[in-house]
Amino acid sequence: MFNKEVYTKRRELLKKEIKSGIALILGNVDASFNYPANVYHFRQDSHFSYFFGLENPGFAGVIDFDNDKDYIFGNDFDIDDVIWMGVQPKVADLAAKAGVKNTAQYTEIADFIAAIKNEGRQIHFLPPYRGETIIELSSLLGLTNAEVKPAASMELIKAVVKLKEIKSDAEVAEIEKAVDIAYEMHTTSMRMAATPGRVEQEIAGTIEGISLALGGPVSFPIILSQDGQTLHNHHHDKVLEVGRMMVTDAGAETHNNYTSDITRTVPVGGKFNERQAEIYQIVLDANMAAIDAIKPGLKYREIHFLACGVIVDGLKKAGIMKGNTKAAVEAGAHTLFMPHGLGHQMGMDVHDMEGLGENNVGYDEDTVRATEFGNAYLRLGKELKTGFVLTVEPGIYFIPDLIDKFRNEGKYMDFINYDKVETYKDFGGIRIEDDILVTEGGYRVLGKAIPKTIKDIEDVMSNPL
Amino acid sequence: MFNKEVYTKRRELLKKEIKSGIALILGNVDASFNYPANVYHFRQDSHFSYFFGLENPGFAGVIDFDNDKDYIFGNDFDIDDVIWMGVQPKVADLAAKAGVKNTAQYTEIADFIAAIKNEGRQIHFLPPYRGETIIELSSLLGLTNAEVKPAASMELIKAVVKLKEIKSDAEVAEIEKAVDIAYEMHTTSMRMAATPGRVEQEIAGTIEGISLALGGPVSFPIILSQDGQTLHNHHHDKVLEVGRMMVTDAGAETHNNYTSDITRTVPVGGKFNERQAEIYQIVLDANMAAIDAIKPGLKYREIHFLACGVIVDGLKKAGIMKGNTKAAVEAGAHTLFMPHGLGHQMGMDVHDMEGLGENNVGYDEDTVRATEFGNAYLRLGKELKTGFVLTVEPGIYFIPDLIDKFRNEGKYMDFINYDKVETYKDFGGIRIEDDILVTEGGYRVLGKAIPKTIKDIEDVMSNPL
Repeated sequence: MFNKEVYTKRRELLKKEIKSGIALILGNVDASFNYPANVYHFRQDSHFSYFFGLENPGFAGVIDFDNDKDYIFGNDFDIDDVIWMGVQPKVADLAAKAGVKNTAQYTEIADFIAAIKNEGRQIHFLPPYRGETIIELSSLLGLTNAEVKPAASMELIKAVVKLKEIKSDAEVAEIEKAVDIAYEMHTTSMRMAATPGRVEQEIAGTIEGISLALGGPVSFPIILSQDGQTLHNHHHDKVLEVGRMMVTDAGAETHNNYTSDITRTVPVGGKFNERQAEIYQIVLDANMAAIDAIKPGLKYREIHFLACGVIVDGLKKAGIMKGNTKAAVEAGAHTLFMPHGLGHQMGMDVHDMEGLGENNVGYDEDTVRATEFGNAYLRLGKELKTGFVLTVEPGIYFIPDLIDKFRNEGKYMDFINYDKVETYKDFGGIRIEDDILVTEGGYRVLGKAIPKTIKDIEDVMSNPL
Repeated sequence: MFNKEVYTKRRELLKKEIKSGIALILGNVDASFNYPANVYHFRQDSHFSYFFGLENPGFAGVIDFDNDKDYIFGNDFDIDDVIWMGVQPKVADLAAKAGVKNTAQYTEIADFIAAIKNEGRQIHFLPPYRGETIIELSSLLGLTNAEVKPAASMELIKAVVKLKEIKSDAEVAEIEKAVDIAYEMHTTSMRMAATPGRVEQEIAGTIEGISLALGGPVSFPIILSQDGQTLHNHHHDKVLEVGRMMVTDAGAETHNNYTSDITRTVPVGGKFNERQAEIYQIVLDANMAAIDAIKPGLKYREIHFLACGVIVDGLKKAGIMKGNTKAAVEAGAHTLFMPHGLGHQMGMDVHDMEGLGENNVGYDEDTVRATEFGNAYLRLGKELKTGFVLTVEPGIYFIPDLIDKFRNEGKYMDFINYDKVETYKDFGGIRIEDDILVTEGGYRVLGKAIPKTIKDIEDVMSNPL
C-alpha cells in the first residue's frame, strides 16, 4: 500500500464532494471456488483499496461526511491463530497504516449502521458486483437482495469517478509496473507463437503464470487466439497454424491492484506474409495516429473517429473499401471491420470503474453515448483531462457472419468492396493496444515499450521458446 | 466431459437413493473479480458437473425422483451473439450430451420450481458456498438468505457422498492426469528452489502457470513457503535462503474438474544438510508406511495413528522425543510436531465434497470425530472402501509458538525433550503428500511418480532452473 497520507487525502477530497451522510465501503471477502474454504486469489474491492489501502478480506470502511470521521471495521485474529499463521497485526494497527484512527471489530458494524439509520442519515454505497456483498448490504441496510443495487448512491458514484479518473504520479508508476509485467507476458507469448503446433492454452497459461510470478493475478481473463475475429472468445483450444495471426490481449495487476491492458497480434511461425503485413500496418498506423492525437481538452470520441478514418484509408489502399473516407466513417462503414470502440479508462480496474456504470465513467452531460452498432460500443467518449490513463486499441477483423449480415442487408455498398472482402474471410483479426497517460503537453505511452512494428515483432520471434 | 451414459447412470443411481421430491442442482455462474463483467476462471459446481457434465455458467439441473425425469435449464445465446462468439450450441444440444431430454430456458426455472412447491413436493438441494447461489436459492425457494443453508437436504447430502466417494476407472484416470500435471509443477518448483535468492512468489506463480497451461486452474491456493511451520500461510514474499526447507503443496485440476494434491519439501539450494536429512527421512518413512498400510476395511484413523507412531519412533531416534511410542501417540504428544490429520478424500474437490460437511464425508455412525487438539483435525477417519481416493500427508513441523505453549503448560513432559526441541526452532517444517487409490488388493499410488527420496530430489535439483 501507499503511505497513510495518500489514503487520508483521498478521503478528504471525497468529503469535499459529498454533503452529508456516510459512505459505507465494503471490502471484499474471499470468493469461494468450489467449496467454502477453497478460494480464488483474493482481490480487494478497488474502491475500498483506493480509500483504505488494506488487502485484508472481510474489512469495511466508513467515511462520515457529517462528522469528518473515518472508521475501519475488521476482525482481529484469535491468539490461537498465532500457532497456524504466525503473529498477525491487529485491526487497529492496520487501520493506522491507512491513517484511520477509529476501528472496531467487524461484528460491531451491524449496530453501527443501525444507529446511522435511526438518525435518519443517508448511507451512500457503490453498486455491488458479488453475491456476498449484496447479501451483506441487504442485511445491514434492511433491503431485499433485489433492492440493493438500485439503492446505490449516484452522488457517491459521481464523486468517486471524479477523484479516481485523475491518476497521481504514484498511481501512474504502479500502472507502469503492471505494463512492465505485460512486457514479459507479451514477449513470451510472441516467442512461444514462433513455434507452430502449440495449443493456445499452453501460451495463455504460461503468461498468466508470469503475471502471478511477478505481480498479482491477471487484470482480466486472457484473450489469446488465432481466431482474433471472434471477439468474445475465451477458449484456448486451437492448435497454432502458420498462416494465422495470433491475438494476445492480456495484462497484469500489481499488488496494489493497478492494472495493465496490452494487445499484440503476431503471425504464427514468426514471419508476416504480404497480406498480413498490409493489414497489420493499417492497424498499427491507426494505433500510432490515435496515440499521437491524445491531449487534454479533446473528446476521446474524436480520436476514435480519427483512428477509424486511418483504418478506412488503409483499407481503401488495400482495395477492401472505397469512396470518401469521412463519409464512410460518418455512415459507420468502418464498423464492419472495427465494430468496437477505440478504448477505455484504466486504473485499479482494467475497465476503470466499469462497475459504477460505463456511462458514468466514459460519458458526461456534454457527451452522450451513441446508440448505433459499432460506435455504441465506445466505452470512453468524453473530453480528456490531464491525468487520465486510457487504452488505445484499434483493430481490423474479418468476421464472416458479420460480413454476410451486412452484405445481405445491402449495407454500405458505396464504401465496401464485398467481393474483395470475401477473400479475407479466412484472415482472422488484428488488434494493437497500448496504455497511455494524458499529460499537460499531450500524452505518454506507459511502461517498457512492447514490440509492435513488423520488424521488432519478427526480431523477437526469431528467438523462439 | 464423459459420454452421456456416464451422467445418465449417475442420475439413475441417485434416484435409487432418494425416495421422493426433486433435486435442484444449480450450476455456478461466473464469479466477478472486481466488477460484474470481469470474472475469475469459471469453475463449475462439482455436483452439477458430476451429474450433468456441462461446463456452461448459469445452468441448472433438476432430477425428478417421483417421475424419473431429468431437466436442464439454461439460456440459449442470441442469434446476434454469433458475430461475437461464433456459432454456439443450443441448450438442448448440450443437454443431449449429458443424456438429458427435457430442457428449458433458464428464465423458466422460477415457474417450474414454484409449481413443484405448489404440489407440496420436497425440493432437495446441497449447501451453497457462493453468494450468487444463495441469492438464487433464496429467490427460487422463497427463503431468506439466512434460511437457505440450513434448509439443505441431509438425505441428498448422504446420497451424493455415497455415490461420489467411490471413483470409477474413468475418474481415476482423470485424477492421474491431474497428478501428472502436478509432476511438472513440483519438479519445476524443485529445480527453481535449487537457485537461492528467488522470491517464493516467482516459483508459486510459475507453477500455477503450469497448471493453467496444461489443465485447469490450480485445485487450491498454492502453499509454497520456506516457513513450512506456518501451516496456514498463503504469503509468498520470502527470499529463499540456503539452510531452509521449502514446502510446496500444490495440485492441478483437469478440464473435467478432477484434482490432484501433492506436497514435496526440498532443501533450498539443492542439498539436504544432516539435520534436514534426518527429519526428512522420518516424514518419508511415515508417508511410505501409511501408504503401504492402505486397504479396504481399515479405518483411516488407524492409518493416521500408524503414521504418528512412525514419526514418534523417528523423533525418539533423533533425541527429540522419548518414552513409549504407543503411549506417546495415545496421549497426543505427537501433535506438537504433526498437529494436523494424515489426509482426506479427493475427487472433483481437492477436499472431496468438503462443502457437504467434513463429518458427512470423512466420518459415519461407526467413526466419530475426535475433539482434542490435533486428532480433531483429521478430515477422514472412517473405514476405507475400494474406489476411495485419498491423500497421505504426514508432516513434522517445529512451530515456535506451539512449542512454547506446550512447554509452558507442562504438556507431554514424559515424551518430549524440550531442550532438544528448542534447538529446532529455526528448522521450519516438512510435509510429504501423495494421492492414493484404495484397491481391492490394497492401494495404488496415482500418477507419474514425483521424486520424494533424498537422492531423487537431489538429482532433480542438480538441474536448476
